Amino acid sequence: MSVNNHNNSHRKGYSYAQDTTQKQKRYTVQRTRTEVIQPKAQAQPKPVSSTGKLKDSHRTPVRIIPLGGLNEIGKNMTVFECSNDMFILDCGLAFPDAEMPGVDIVIPDFTYVERNQEKLRGIVITHGHEDHIGGLAYLLKKINAPIYASGMTVGLIKHKLEEHGLLNKVALNVVEPRKHVKMGCMSVEFIKVTHSIPGSMAMAIHTPAGVIVHTGDFKIDHSPIDGEKIDLGRFGELGNRGVLALMADSTNAERAGYTQSERKVGESFERLFTRAGNKRIIIATFSSNIHRVQQIINMAEKTKRKVAVLGRSMINVIATAMELGYLTVPKNILVDIETIDMYPPERLVLVTTGSQGEPMSALTRMAMHDHNKINITPLDFIILSATPIPGNEKHVTKVVNELLKSGAEVIYESMYEVHVSGHACQEELKLMLALTKPKFFIPVHGEYKHLIKHKKLAIEMGIPKENILLSSIGDVIETDGMKLQIVAQVPSGRTLVDGLGVGDVGSIVLRDRKHLAEDGLIIIIVGLRRATNEVVAGPEIISRGFVYVRESEEMIQQARKILYHKLKSCSPYELRDWTSLKMKLRDALFDFIFDKTKRTPMILPIIMEI
Amino acid sequence: MSVNNHNNSHRKGYSYAQDTTQKQKRYTVQRTRTEVIQPKAQAQPKPVSSTGKLKDSHRTPVRIIPLGGLNEIGKNMTVFECSNDMFILDCGLAFPDAEMPGVDIVIPDFTYVERNQEKLRGIVITHGHEDHIGGLAYLLKKINAPIYASGMTVGLIKHKLEEHGLLNKVALNVVEPRKHVKMGCMSVEFIKVTHSIPGSMAMAIHTPAGVIVHTGDFKIDHSPIDGEKIDLGRFGELGNRGVLALMADSTNAERAGYTQSERKVGESFERLFTRAGNKRIIIATFSSNIHRVQQIINMAEKTKRKVAVLGRSMINVIATAMELGYLTVPKNILVDIETIDMYPPERLVLVTTGSQGEPMSALTRMAMHDHNKINITPLDFIILSATPIPGNEKHVTKVVNELLKSGAEVIYESMYEVHVSGHACQEELKLMLALTKPKFFIPVHGEYKHLIKHKKLAIEMGIPKENILLSSIGDVIETDGMKLQIVAQVPSGRTLVDGLGVGDVGSIVLRDRKHLAEDGLIIIIVGLRRATNEVVAGPEIISRGFVYVRESEEMIQQARKILYHKLKSCSPYELRDWTSLKMKLRDALFDFIFDKTKRTPMILPIIMEI
Repeated sequence: MSVNNHNNSHRKGYSYAQDTTQKQKRYTVQRTRTEVIQPKAQAQPKPVSSTGKLKDSHRTPVRIIPLGGLNEIGKNMTVFECSNDMFILDCGLAFPDAEMPGVDIVIPDFTYVERNQEKLRGIVITHGHEDHIGGLAYLLKKINAPIYASGMTVGLIKHKLEEHGLLNKVALNVVEPRKHVKMGCMSVEFIKVTHSIPGSMAMAIHTPAGVIVHTGDFKIDHSPIDGEKIDLGRFGELGNRGVLALMADSTNAERAGYTQSERKVGESFERLFTRAGNKRIIIATFSSNIHRVQQIINMAEKTKRKVAVLGRSMINVIATAMELGYLTVPKNILVDIETIDMYPPERLVLVTTGSQGEPMSALTRMAMHDHNKINITPLDFIILSATPIPGNEKHVTKVVNELLKSGAEVIYESMYEVHVSGHACQEELKLMLALTKPKFFIPVHGEYKHLIKHKKLAIEMGIPKENILLSSIGDVIETDGMKLQIVAQVPSGRTLVDGLGVGDVGSIVLRDRKHLAEDGLIIIIVGLRRATNEVVAGPEIISRGFVYVRESEEMIQQARKILYHKLKSCSPYELRDWTSLKMKLRDALFDFIFDKTKRTPMILPIIMEI
Repeated sequence: MSVNNHNNSHRKGYSYAQDTTQKQKRYTVQRTRTEVIQPKAQAQPKPVSSTGKLKDSHRTPVRIIPLGGLNEIGKNMTVFECSNDMFILDCGLAFPDAEMPGVDIVIPDFTYVERNQEKLRGIVITHGHEDHIGGLAYLLKKINAPIYASGMTVGLIKHKLEEHGLLNKVALNVVEPRKHVKMGCMSVEFIKVTHSIPGSMAMAIHTPAGVIVHTGDFKIDHSPIDGEKIDLGRFGELGNRGVLALMADSTNAERAGYTQSERKVGESFERLFTRAGNKRIIIATFSSNIHRVQQIINMAEKTKRKVAVLGRSMINVIATAMELGYLTVPKNILVDIETIDMYPPERLVLVTTGSQGEPMSALTRMAMHDHNKINITPLDFIILSATPIPGNEKHVTKVVNELLKSGAEVIYESMYEVHVSGHACQEELKLMLALTKPKFFIPVHGEYKHLIKHKKLAIEMGIPKENILLSSIGDVIETDGMKLQIVAQVPSGRTLVDGLGVGDVGSIVLRDRKHLAEDGLIIIIVGLRRATNEVVAGPEIISRGFVYVRESEEMIQQARKILYHKLKSCSPYELRDWTSLKMKLRDALFDFIFDKTKRTPMILPIIMEI
């Protein structure tokens, strides 16, 4: 298996933190006073005692404000503040759940950042997954700040900003591992970690109060596909010098042991490629998992198959990764999807999106016989190289069933080890705690059950209970090096994005949508002549999503009669008070309908003034 | 651990198949010509050759018509037909998925049974789970037939019929294991199996064409809590004499190995009760899992705790099981929920519903601080003794998070073995195939992916590919002992139950509900004087579930203007054609709204005649 050892000189397209301002200008139209500094200009070393512990003296306090990613999965975002300086770490999105019908994505509430934008020195991004970068474009429409991230991450952000027409308005800066970015009185050091996307970084935030380590998303993969190992040495060094607080990824805190190396998936692919024999191989995986794509390409090369890529995001990410040198692709192995009919099945591997059964994805369309290029037959060998994210199980099952019905062989069980997690399990989490030896610990990235499990691990590791903080979004966590505590609250929550609307779908709209979905709608229309308080039209009844009207004609007729008599019984005075008239009509219909059907449709009385 | 060895004399309340007609009358008001026969009156033995194989001669054909449970989980129902006789095996419900908002339950399409009710000799039920009995009440409102099932199953059916006011209209007959029920020219033999509810039966259907074995839901538990083992001997005997076709449960066909014995859960409970120490124990599980409840009661007795039961279905099922002798409860161990404050936490176990995070269940209400009797505190030790059913994961996680936030200890991971499946894994499925040695094999109870996996297992077991049938609901499968094939189709599908409405929510209503849920609704109202084709009121706009109107005042104003101009531009002729006028208004608004928001709300133009 060829390992793709990056060389900076092979990467192109973006400036690096150590490049000159001249070079950076290519990507910026606006300069800020934030400067990228060289290692020698570090704000380090921190004052440490001879035992390697932090000196117990009060220092300029630092505030940590999580705005997303605590007690939830996704929309990770944290604000760091010290004196008059502020920076943001990550700005992700979350996907809506069943309680948010029609909502496209969920982003953090940016109110606090907007109100304090004069303090904002920049935005650092740990890695390029949607739950860490997906909110950026929405934030950058409100405020502007330079962005600092690894080359791969910058490449992916660039795509996002392009889609939103923001590319030329924002400064994008590539930062190399172990390099620092100065954010006023704070300095952010990038530390290489392994994860399921290249260019993932943890951050060591050097502040007057001490060093705060934020792991970002990570696992400890000692044999990463690109050879870029997690910088355990640097975590150890920081730990020895004294880490004030650790904020660590809790996603897999419930899982015992170690997360397997990505290389394990390659071994499975090797066996499965043999088993596929003369069949066409189709592999669905996350578009951002470049290492997995690398392994597929390696196996394709070995077995003399061509590779075609399907799905918009897969094509985009692979192009970015190739351009930046994160993906090594032998010549002539990639073929255009339009040309695949030129090759026999045994000479092809298709790499596609849709491993989560997403309704519009390439794989789902193939399964539903709705893909204009690919027709699934018994000559297909399909691998779902992913685990369903909670909530997606039924979608994935549907896709698997449909693919099987076309006669294809489908590999989807976990027993084949066609997927490994990108997050650290318990033993890795313990190792991170052991290396960084933090005074305070704040588990992040997870629901409450993950955070509390991570807390228990930290207690087992000897961190005093009272030095572990289970925080919530909106908390202002302050530390002066001696204490760490929640001192205030800022606005936080979720902002729903639906189409072009950002935040215009709130709880009332959602409540109405759910009500309409559950029970449908009945509209009552009455025309009233204001002058005489005379009913001149209606009552008419229109329903949607309630019953199939043709089969319930009689009930609707009865309902109309009830409303007619209700109106008849109203005095001219009652007919004048439209608000209470509407209420009366609604109540009369509600009782009748509930009695008849035990359902509670939304009832909308409309009175027209003639 | 005390094992509850049933003795018939301890069961009461229902007549048994071998009882006299006199006794049966207690439960029936209507007699049918179906008769319960003694073993000696069996339609057996089948004609078998000297090698124990079925003779290869054509016989009176039998038709098997699955109406539910194939390519889906739930609503299991199969019709068996021979000459002029017909009977039904199981009549279950399925739970609605996200594509069916507002729907309460899903039942099979009964059209075929209704059309052929003069042939119907009876209904046999394998066991008392909802997916096998939940459709019965709806079927019995359309047709009547005597029901045959085990004592436990009859007890649970009785409850259902009571709820629907059907109890005195239907003949309920208890059938003992190894006993037969005559259904015209067919005879159904009850065979004991182990499953996650007591009184589970497989059926051997003795027909002129040969014996068809239907396993129902089963696992092979050699150490069941009640000592009632699966009747492997009878399966073996039938296999030796020659089984024409096997229809077997495919639910766990994807899982390798053996399903653990229910007793394993007892061992976990033993450890967890110790670990709970002085805390109050709360265990959530499926109400029908009487064996689990038995183990909880046994552990409570051992640790000197009282047991209180919460949740309507849990209370009902436990009462039925106790009444019928399926549950052995020591004196004075059960206490009323109203009295639990009299006992310290370490003297209590609460058994509750809600293991699937069902929104209205007792456990969910406890988690949300919405239960009027139970307040969750750090003195609670809570065990979720169940695995989330696909689709329920997020509900369960929410409940776990909330319970943890109250400070309770919560056991929910699979690693504690607080749950075992009730369905056979691959090795057990192979054993069933090995014992029954069927000529034909029809995998049932499962989605396509389960059925095809089960087919593969059968091929490994030596059953010829061409003798295995992957069928669908509505197929008429015919066999004359020589061949087995699909010969016709009958109406089949799903009937949606919403409130009191059965079948009045169809695809149009569902489509409207989903549309309303995704994008909301805009109503356009115009008042027209028919005589003069003059607009006398409106256009007005009302929206629900679309945007929060107060914040989108301007857009709504603009929309009104567009509609106003559209109406203005209409000729009197155009104003006369309301259908196309509505279309014009809808299109004008659609374009404007989509352009502004990239959303596609349902637009309902209403023209009132004045």
